[in-house]
Amino acid sequence: MLERIESNNPWTIIDKETIYENSWIELIHHNVLNPSGGKGIYGKVHFKNKAIGVIAVDKELNTYLVGQYRFPIEQYSWELPEGGCPLETDSLETAKRELLEETGLVASKWLRIGDGFLSNSVSDEYAEYYLATELEQHNAEPEETEQLIVKKLPLLEVFSMVKDGRITDALSQIPLLKLELMLLKGELTL
Amino acid sequence: MLERIESNNPWTIIDKETIYENSWIELIHHNVLNPSGGKGIYGKVHFKNKAIGVIAVDKELNTYLVGQYRFPIEQYSWELPEGGCPLETDSLETAKRELLEETGLVASKWLRIGDGFLSNSVSDEYAEYYLATELEQHNAEPEETEQLIVKKLPLLEVFSMVKDGRITDALSQIPLLKLELMLLKGELTL
Repeated sequence: MLERIESNNPWTIIDKETIYENSWIELIHHNVLNPSGGKGIYGKVHFKNKAIGVIAVDKELNTYLVGQYRFPIEQYSWELPEGGCPLETDSLETAKRELLEETGLVASKWLRIGDGFLSNSVSDEYAEYYLATELEQHNAEPEETEQLIVKKLPLLEVFSMVKDGRITDALSQIPLLKLELMLLKGELTL
Repeated sequence: MLERIESNNPWTIIDKETIYENSWIELIHHNVLNPSGGKGIYGKVHFKNKAIGVIAVDKELNTYLVGQYRFPIEQYSWELPEGGCPLETDSLETAKRELLEETGLVASKWLRIGDGFLSNSVSDEYAEYYLATELEQHNAEPEETEQLIVKKLPLLEVFSMVKDGRITDALSQIPLLKLELMLLKGELTL
């Protein structure tokens, strides 16, 4: 019964129009019939890239955070090394590239620790999360438009930053919470 | 030193224009100078509402999920009871109303367990998370446009749905991961 319901899209699209597009997002306005059959609208933000978040952990159980001023929230934010890549691009290759660009780190061991949709009531932004270990330090190569600060911190301190709200970014919170749980439950050792 | 850097907005807005607006979001296109001083653009999605996610747990350690087809991701999604309210509205009152509307539950004990920004590279969407306990069943009052299915499930089963990827929604993943950690660490008992 649930299977049948889950397979059906209860929304009907009457027509749609791209209102705005840049290199990262496309805003598409839809005239729809909602699941109850009533006329309505749906403004969807399509993301051209998927988001990748990386927890890099060294032998001394330190991890790396990147600080930057986030334009949309008008706040400074401490986050995992993060990046984006076109949907059809290999996520792990992107994770490796972003980690190198932002922190100069090369990891020889990678583990995918989860994925999901960040804001499914409005957008289709999809995210994947990785743990990177066995690290080697090379030179960072930040993008020209970025003004990043990299901090090396004890992993336990970063877990506490999620707990007490100093890390506000969902793309950082989710993998850090996942990793802390995996370590506590003994599903993983570092 | 970090304090000084964190307080400065390194972006300069040359001009901005609202390209699209509906009841929930506003897309604002900005011409900017990026942190390196180069000319660029920034399309920001402003959310008129904050998002609220509620974990309701009964005496038998069951919790409640809401299933619905999510238009933006073109997928069915099992999630916590969720809602939105204008930024200036009291979050707890909204949490109470949404829980009642979607599940018919009234809780006499509430605990705020976190908050954050869901997609800070593009939007200012802000979310808050609550735990609701000491539940009483009343009648659900779903909104006319919604076609929701409510399932009561063991909390431990729902934790496993986050772990294995059956729950993909960040607004559900974050508070469920937080709650599982709090319980494992003995910071909370249910």
